This record gives sequence, C-alpha cells and structure tokens, in this order.
Amino acid sequence: MSAQKGTAFIGLGMMGQGMARNILRAGIALRGFDLFLQSRAKFAESGGVACDTAAEAASGCDLVIVMVQTPAQARQVLFGDGVAAALEPNSTVVLCSTVAPSDVRELAADLVPLGHTMVDAPVSGGQVGADAGTLTIMASGPDAAFARARPALEAASRALHHLGTEVGLGATYKVVHQLAAGVHLVAAAELMALGVKAGCDPQKLYEIVTSSAGNSWMFGDRAPRMMQADPATTSSVDIFIKDVGLVLQTGKDAGVPLPLAAAAHQMLIAAASLGHGPEDDSCVVRAYEALTGKVVHES
Amino acid sequence: MSAQKGTAFIGLGMMGQGMARNILRAGIALRGFDLFLQSRAKFAESGGVACDTAAEAASGCDLVIVMVQTPAQARQVLFGDGVAAALEPNSTVVLCSTVAPSDVRELAADLVPLGHTMVDAPVSGGQVGADAGTLTIMASGPDAAFARARPALEAASRALHHLGTEVGLGATYKVVHQLAAGVHLVAAAELMALGVKAGCDPQKLYEIVTSSAGNSWMFGDRAPRMMQADPATTSSVDIFIKDVGLVLQTGKDAGVPLPLAAAAHQMLIAAASLGHGPEDDSCVVRAYEALTGKVVHES
Repeated sequence: MSAQKGTAFIGLGMMGQGMARNILRAGIALRGFDLFLQSRAKFAESGGVACDTAAEAASGCDLVIVMVQTPAQARQVLFGDGVAAALEPNSTVVLCSTVAPSDVRELAADLVPLGHTMVDAPVSGGQVGADAGTLTIMASGPDAAFARARPALEAASRALHHLGTEVGLGATYKVVHQLAAGVHLVAAAELMALGVKAGCDPQKLYEIVTSSAGNSWMFGDRAPRMMQADPATTSSVDIFIKDVGLVLQTGKDAGVPLPLAAAAHQMLIAAASLGHGPEDDSCVVRAYEALTGKVVHES
Repeated sequence: MSAQKGTAFIGLGMMGQGMARNILRAGIALRGFDLFLQSRAKFAESGGVACDTAAEAASGCDLVIVMVQTPAQARQVLFGDGVAAALEPNSTVVLCSTVAPSDVRELAADLVPLGHTMVDAPVSGGQVGADAGTLTIMASGPDAAFARARPALEAASRALHHLGTEVGLGATYKVVHQLAAGVHLVAAAELMALGVKAGCDPQKLYEIVTSSAGNSWMFGDRAPRMMQADPATTSSVDIFIKDVGLVLQTGKDAGVPLPLAAAAHQMLIAAASLGHGPEDDSCVVRAYEALTGKVVHES
C-alpha cells in the first residue's frame, strides 16, 4: 500500500534533495517545499511540484516526508507552518531527521489528536548516499503507516529496516549507531595526531591502518581529509556535536554511562571552539593539533 | 640477501608457531626454541629443528626472529639466555613483539657492542593472520639488516612495510595503530551496551552498524562474541591492557594527550578487575554490563 492521495517532501537540503530526486525517479509524484528558493528550483528540475509554503505542499497529501535538521524545525514545519493541519485525515508523517528518541515520541503524540501516525526513519550514508539512493534507513512505526511510506523510502535507500512498530525505535538505532561513527571519527584524529608527533609518515600510517585491524569506515573516509589543509565540507563538526549530544542524551535516558562518547564530544566541542564548527568534521583534528603544536597536514 | 648461515626462531606460541610454519613452507630452514615442550614438538612436525635451549637454536645463525610477549622476555632471551652471544658476528635480530618504541631502542643499543643489528618488526593480524601467513608487518631498521630478514618476513605476511632505517619506527607505527584497534574494541562494547539497554535487538543493531558509517574492523569481528555468553578466547583483555598502555606511554613520550585511548584503557582495566583479564577481549563488554545491570548476550 503506498500513498493513495499524494506525497509531500519538506526539507530539500543536502540530504533531502537527493532523496526526493530518487523518489521522483522511482515514479512517485512529489509536492515539495524548502525555505530556499534555489532548493525548490532544483527540486522542480527533477520533476517535483515546488510549492511556496510547506502547508501548500502537504495539501491533499496523505504522506509527508520531513527531512529537516532539528526537532525544533520539525515541530515548526508540522505545527507552526500548518503541515499537520493541511494533510488529509489519517495521514502518515515520516521524520527522517536524526533526533533523540524522546523527541520523536513527543512529536508523534502531538499528531495523534489530528489522526496522523508517525514513522520515524532516520538515515545513514550522508549526502553521497542520499544522491546515489544508497542510504541505510532505520524505520519504526505501526505496520500500516510503514507500508504507506515503504515505496518512497525504498526508492531512497539500499537497506530499509523496519525495526519495530513502536515509534522512536528507529531514532534509537540511529543514535546508537552514531556513537560508533562519532567515536571513530575522533579516534582517527587522535591516531593521526599521535602518529605524526611520534615520527610516522601520515600517508604510510593511513595505508597501514586501513589494511589492518585498526580500520574503520570513518578512518578510511575522514583521515585523508585530515591530511588536507582545507578539506571540502561534506558534514560539519557542528552536526557531529549535535549527533554525539543525542548519543549522550540517549545514554542518560537509558542509564548507560558512555566514557568514550563523552570524551569524543569534548574534542568536537574544542574544535568548534577553535572556529571549526561549520567546517568539515575531519577538522576535529585541529583540536589535537592545538594540544600538540604539530599540524597533521604539514607532515 | 637472506641469511647466509642460518635462521633461528625464538618464541613458538600463538603467534610464533604459525609464523614459523609459513617461513618453513617457503623453504627457509629454521632452528627453533620455546619454553614449552609441546610447542617445540609442533614446530618439529612442521619441519623445523627444535632445540633444547634458545642459545642452541641461535648457535651458528646470523638471523634470529624473536616473538615473545614482553620487552622483559625479549631481554631475557637475548642477554639472559645467551642468544646474542651464540649468534654469528654481525647478525640480525628481528623483534616481532609489540613493545614500546623506547624498549626497542634500548635493546638495539645493547646489541651494538656485540656487533648485531636490530630490525623491529611488530605484526598485526592476530593468530588467524599468523596461521594463514597474512600478517601486516611494520618493520624498521638499517637496509642491510632488513634485506637479510626480508625473505622470512615476506613468507609470514601479506603486507610487509619497511618504514625507515631507524630502529623503533616499526614499533611506533604498530603502537599508534593499536590506538584505533583498542578504542574501536571498547567503542563496540559501549555501543552494544547502550543499544540493548535502550531497547534495540543486538543482532539487528549488529547488521545496521556493520552496513553503515559506524562500522569498524573490530566491531565486525568482536561484536558477535559480545553477544555470546562464553566467547572463545582469541586475544585476551590483558593483552589489550598492555597494548593500550603502550599507546599511552608513546603518547606521553611524544607529548600527545589521548583522551579516547585513556578512557578505553580504564574500561579494559575494569573488565580485568571483574576477573575477565585472561578471557577474550570482547569481554570488555562485561565492564559496561556491570554499570548498567543489563547483559548484552541475554537480550
């Protein structure tokens, strides 16, 4: 069962734009909205119906996919901008943002009086995965609502997991997964900083680690950018400060102390404090460089 | 240039036995010694000449490979048990143990008066890699000494790196690499403990992490054993306490603070404190279980 009446996509940024394009390519019609005119124009070029407001995009639809950055933005879209009110009765709201499980549950509860059902469906794979349609999607929510969302989510992903009927479980898996991504990112910086200070050639060190038991997906992807003076930004330090913050919040809520995640968070915060918050997350290495006086990319 | 006179192998344990077997298979004759009679018998079955003492094994050789656990054992073998004195003049001593760079340099300096040259050649890949001959070897030392050791080291490895002529550099790369292995091991335990306490199914969590940006070699290898009540021991918690200790020592010597490695070390120490020191290193998850009251393998 897919959406019977229509599908809307709100939030056509770095992640949403690629996702929407892949959904359109799969033959699913989309009405879309983003605050930026340029993003709406790009969406229209891909074949979507660009609308002037979020409510207009949602109007007449029984499925809406929301890909914004924060729970506050999601709340604004749904209740401030009138998306929840503009949807058909008994609609399905899919939240793809990475937010705390408790945030998802609160938003879902507020949709109940309007008759809508939430599916939380956070994604992993970054902008590259969004553009290629190869995301991993960690979804949860009632079966009927998930079934309605499935065709669109399948079009945007390589691996679509329905992890349970309880909304918020998808967010839990995503946040727990981010513990590894965040710790591995900072561990890569810690390793490179130690290596160059102790006399290793960073490129040789990279080759050895990526071919040995110390390898991680994040090391392989981010260490090369740690060896660059001015790396391109794919995902920022600030986004990881947010994500590891969600990890720590989830640990606190579940009663699990997280010494590694907590230490990683501190180093990310230091990198932001040095002015690298909006830059590529590989710039967390700048926090170590500030402590050692030795710059990794000059070695 | 390989060894002209003969090659000895001292330390035929979990790592050394497989390495020696692969060197013998490559057609290089070996004289060998281990404290355990059983290890000597196994070595003889593989075609090596088993000797009753380390000095007897080294006698007449101009190349000796030492694979013991600690720098104290290496010192005992070389100077206490008379290996250095039994070798031919101007021999090459290859130390494959994971030790601190400063330990390697001290041992190398003490060999100089005897005319011997050290190559440090620590390995990565564990017992599986030793048995299969697929180790990564991180070697350093003068060119002539490395050339003499090369045929034997190539027979034991898939990737043999000559990282420089300065002895101790191989140990530096190995120790720096262990930062990632150790932090990723503990991060895997932290993630699994958080996941099950927050309501995730551990097997589903494993599938998601290993197919996403949070994956690491250690997570893929160790998380399955964290889901077992009584995992087989491939490498112990105690060994990782030693290895991450070397990481921290190297950081201190180089002037690099290592918050993640330090936090990981604490959790490994806690696991040993709970009685899991000699058990599989995946048992570091027991330290988290002790803090949360929830057992990962029962979820």
